[in-house]
Amino acid sequence: MANKAQVLYDFTAEPGNNELTVKEGETITITNQNIGGGWVEAQNYRGERGLVPEDYIELCTGSLAGGRAATPDSTYEYFPEQPSTTTGYQARNGSDPWSPWNADSAGNSRNSWVAQPEVTGSGRTPSTGIYNPTVQEHPQAYHGPGGTDDEEWDDDWDDARSTGGYAESEVGDEGATNRPGSHGTMKLNLNKFPVFHKSGPEVYLLAKLPPKGKDKISIYVGEVGPVWLYPESQLECVVADPKKGSKMYGLKSYIEYQVTPTTTNRSVNHRYKHFDWLYERLLEKYGSAIPIPSLPDKQVTGRFEEEFIKMRMERLQGWVTRMCRHPVISSSEVFQLFLTYKDEKEWKMGKRKAERDETVGVMIFSTIEPEAPDLDITVVETKCEAFGRFTKAMDDGVKELLSVGQEHWKRCTGPLQKEYQRIGKAFQNLSSVFCSSGYEGEATLTDALTAAGKTYEEIAQIVEEQPKKDLHFLLETNNEYKGLLGCFPDTLSVHKAAIEKVKEGDRMVAANKISPQEKLTMAKRISTMSYALQAEMNHFHSNRIYDYNRVMQLYLEEQVKFYESIAEKLRQALSQFTTL
Amino acid sequence: MANKAQVLYDFTAEPGNNELTVKEGETITITNQNIGGGWVEAQNYRGERGLVPEDYIELCTGSLAGGRAATPDSTYEYFPEQPSTTTGYQARNGSDPWSPWNADSAGNSRNSWVAQPEVTGSGRTPSTGIYNPTVQEHPQAYHGPGGTDDEEWDDDWDDARSTGGYAESEVGDEGATNRPGSHGTMKLNLNKFPVFHKSGPEVYLLAKLPPKGKDKISIYVGEVGPVWLYPESQLECVVADPKKGSKMYGLKSYIEYQVTPTTTNRSVNHRYKHFDWLYERLLEKYGSAIPIPSLPDKQVTGRFEEEFIKMRMERLQGWVTRMCRHPVISSSEVFQLFLTYKDEKEWKMGKRKAERDETVGVMIFSTIEPEAPDLDITVVETKCEAFGRFTKAMDDGVKELLSVGQEHWKRCTGPLQKEYQRIGKAFQNLSSVFCSSGYEGEATLTDALTAAGKTYEEIAQIVEEQPKKDLHFLLETNNEYKGLLGCFPDTLSVHKAAIEKVKEGDRMVAANKISPQEKLTMAKRISTMSYALQAEMNHFHSNRIYDYNRVMQLYLEEQVKFYESIAEKLRQALSQFTTL
Repeated sequence: MANKAQVLYDFTAEPGNNELTVKEGETITITNQNIGGGWVEAQNYRGERGLVPEDYIELCTGSLAGGRAATPDSTYEYFPEQPSTTTGYQARNGSDPWSPWNADSAGNSRNSWVAQPEVTGSGRTPSTGIYNPTVQEHPQAYHGPGGTDDEEWDDDWDDARSTGGYAESEVGDEGATNRPGSHGTMKLNLNKFPVFHKSGPEVYLLAKLPPKGKDKISIYVGEVGPVWLYPESQLECVVADPKKGSKMYGLKSYIEYQVTPTTTNRSVNHRYKHFDWLYERLLEKYGSAIPIPSLPDKQVTGRFEEEFIKMRMERLQGWVTRMCRHPVISSSEVFQLFLTYKDEKEWKMGKRKAERDETVGVMIFSTIEPEAPDLDITVVETKCEAFGRFTKAMDDGVKELLSVGQEHWKRCTGPLQKEYQRIGKAFQNLSSVFCSSGYEGEATLTDALTAAGKTYEEIAQIVEEQPKKDLHFLLETNNEYKGLLGCFPDTLSVHKAAIEKVKEGDRMVAANKISPQEKLTMAKRISTMSYALQAEMNHFHSNRIYDYNRVMQLYLEEQVKFYESIAEKLRQALSQFTTL
Repeated sequence: MANKAQVLYDFTAEPGNNELTVKEGETITITNQNIGGGWVEAQNYRGERGLVPEDYIELCTGSLAGGRAATPDSTYEYFPEQPSTTTGYQARNGSDPWSPWNADSAGNSRNSWVAQPEVTGSGRTPSTGIYNPTVQEHPQAYHGPGGTDDEEWDDDWDDARSTGGYAESEVGDEGATNRPGSHGTMKLNLNKFPVFHKSGPEVYLLAKLPPKGKDKISIYVGEVGPVWLYPESQLECVVADPKKGSKMYGLKSYIEYQVTPTTTNRSVNHRYKHFDWLYERLLEKYGSAIPIPSLPDKQVTGRFEEEFIKMRMERLQGWVTRMCRHPVISSSEVFQLFLTYKDEKEWKMGKRKAERDETVGVMIFSTIEPEAPDLDITVVETKCEAFGRFTKAMDDGVKELLSVGQEHWKRCTGPLQKEYQRIGKAFQNLSSVFCSSGYEGEATLTDALTAAGKTYEEIAQIVEEQPKKDLHFLLETNNEYKGLLGCFPDTLSVHKAAIEKVKEGDRMVAANKISPQEKLTMAKRISTMSYALQAEMNHFHSNRIYDYNRVMQLYLEEQVKFYESIAEKLRQALSQFTTL
């Protein structure tokens, strides 16, 4: 095996990190292939030596790490419609998770689920797409940390299809392949419905169910309709104190967050990849019944940049809080493990157990026990459609608000503040000219004019900083909801597929494909699914009302302060002029 | 003489005004050439008949009204550097009256004064340039009345080189040829200085002066230096109550303004052309010593549009007020005539007398009597240069403020208010979606969210209307000052030319061009000129301090109200949300 390699993408070394800057097309010599963590040690033609990400290079006579495709995201070309949850406030282009609900919707569902290639559940996947140069282009709009070259390479990181967080281009995003059915082998075209590997609704509708154990999930009928059983006190959890850790003898570093649940008041440390592991488990287990919002995007550039860390922490906090507020998620074994493991051993054992859990995909419905009479299929269908319409409409509304909010952010931090600055400068310049007149008794006017000018410069600064104080939270909340709403098409399509299956019951009995008894079972189970969906919608609504009430108040409070503070500043500036 | 004519420019008839719409290149038949007022009656190929401005057409076998050049402003190509006083808040491009004060300044003065063609002082001048199509394009920025086709053609109107008031292009502007020396025949190259016909400084410096009569203008040395003699009470004057009059048997109409001085409290009526006549007289008589600001531009389009009339009245008021505040102007015979004539006969007699006045141009200095010791030429020169620097610097400062103010105006009335509207709409849309949830207990949130949305729509309106309440006066004042400052280069160059002349005194005596006595006379007279300039500068300074103090207070007061009113609206919107 030759030790020469060709560089596929530009890579800029992070200073003081033992890395080597390489250029696309350059030929380098691999001096140590056993570094691990996705790195190799290489030497360039000038004799400089350092670490290079192995995904950036191609061995000249063979492939490294199982070979790699030429285009960075070709691995994901089968998922053109996967919902993405970009954390930058970018309107999503192209892939629209709502498309199945449009015109030719109904049974004609997501082709993205039809032809998923096998993705290995463990072992390193080449982190293609991460270093797409477009990722480095942050829009000015939002506090994306500048295009620094900080990069962390998590070893044993399974999936690195992250976007730059604020990237304008759409490359694959985290969780894109983490849909139900993305692990293990595929079973194609079992019936005319889209294939849900391990979670095709028939698996549950026709399964012989084991007796419900301690994992039983209860649904009651409350004032607003079916609701999950809520715990007496709501779990809360603080994500704080991000710390830089290091491994590989200090060569590579990472960020660890301190997670402290109120129940134990004892901190556990988690890296982003642990959050991601949790996300995958929750998605796999509950995704058919409960929309599991994606984690904040994995940031590639500037990962140690202070502002980015703060931002990610804030978003991880938001994600964890949302999970804590969910009665089913918060009481789940895997979530509790994540928050309360006592030592490495318990964590590793718990991990293994969770990964072996077989009650995943649509089988989650088998653990759900609604204390309510069975529902007619037409009622089930009507409700499902109504939820679809609502979530689609809200998705549109949220995106509209995000779009105008983002534009407003740009205007406040860009042209508007510059204009106030220019007004301030113009007043001050005029004041300096007046000072040069040599005329007696200028001072009162020029002092006041200078003060007015400075006031407008201060206003410029207030205007520039304001979005961080109010618009930020409005956008963050709506962004979170955009992510959450983006999960509904998946969840709802499971229900729609099941409804279609049940509606075919008579024909299937006639064709001897199922027994009359099985048909009755299906009817009962679709009713259970519908209660679960209703409980989830009611959970969503109550949270939504709480969240929007809170964020609107916060926004308006800060807006009031904003306008009042400007008025006060101007009042002071005014007082400096001679009263006529 | 053929009665066919070719149409040179598009002309759109004002409905109900007996006019005929014609297109460039069209051939029409002149049916009556004796209409007057710049109009001819014509018939098109469809047999339609109506009035057409004679300047829009060219007789096919000869010229009408003395013929006309092909390019609209070719008449003014000799005045590339004439200061223009556009009333729209457009930064002036190209022609910069300050250029003589730059690098290669000094004696190398304004070529614009060298080669002025004779302009008839009475009789109609073809109104070239008025209908330049670009004039009809109003920038959105300022409340220019839309591009209507209203047009008034004053008969016996001498000079119609007006711009559209808000025009972005620079065509000749009123007063452009009304500089000292623009009437009567030219005298070229009497010496190496720029030629000031009738007002070349030597005319005064070397003239045999008549004894000072009742027109004597006094200068005292006050606390701030030389000052004009101010009257005990300042003249004030109200321009109000614009009325539409008509003539030519109702075919043509015009606007008459009521002018009421506080001294008599008796109104006189004046059309714009009377103001313009006054302006020309003042410029001719006092322009060498006192900068006479141009009148607001003669508006071509939308002349009867309500907003335009209001705007012109406001600016005429501003102009008259400024004249009233000037002790020399306000007490002048011609100004008093304008304000207090008793009947048509007195007006006409006064007009004739004023037009025959010979104490014009630099001869005005012969009436000035400073009660102060003669000044050394170096002092005179230093002061003149200092005033030049100051007025140039202030001109820059004023233009900067106008430029940013205009931009701010556009932003407030354009993108900013649209953005607030969109924010308002986004909140309301989200509220409607929430209403459709079918979830119990939405109402409080949705009502509050709708109210918040409406509040932002109201804010949009406030933002859009605000510039008219504050920025308007700031821009108007600065615009007035821009016009005033644009007159200084002319006034100052008279002084500079005189200084150069006096500095040459010894050489001229040696060359026997002047007698030693004449040299002494010149020295005394330059001193008088300098006192006049100082008095004028001090007048300018005291007015400037008053005006800027006033307008800044007004601006800031309205700005405070603006921000307070928005804060109050938001506070109300906030109160509708449930307290958490």
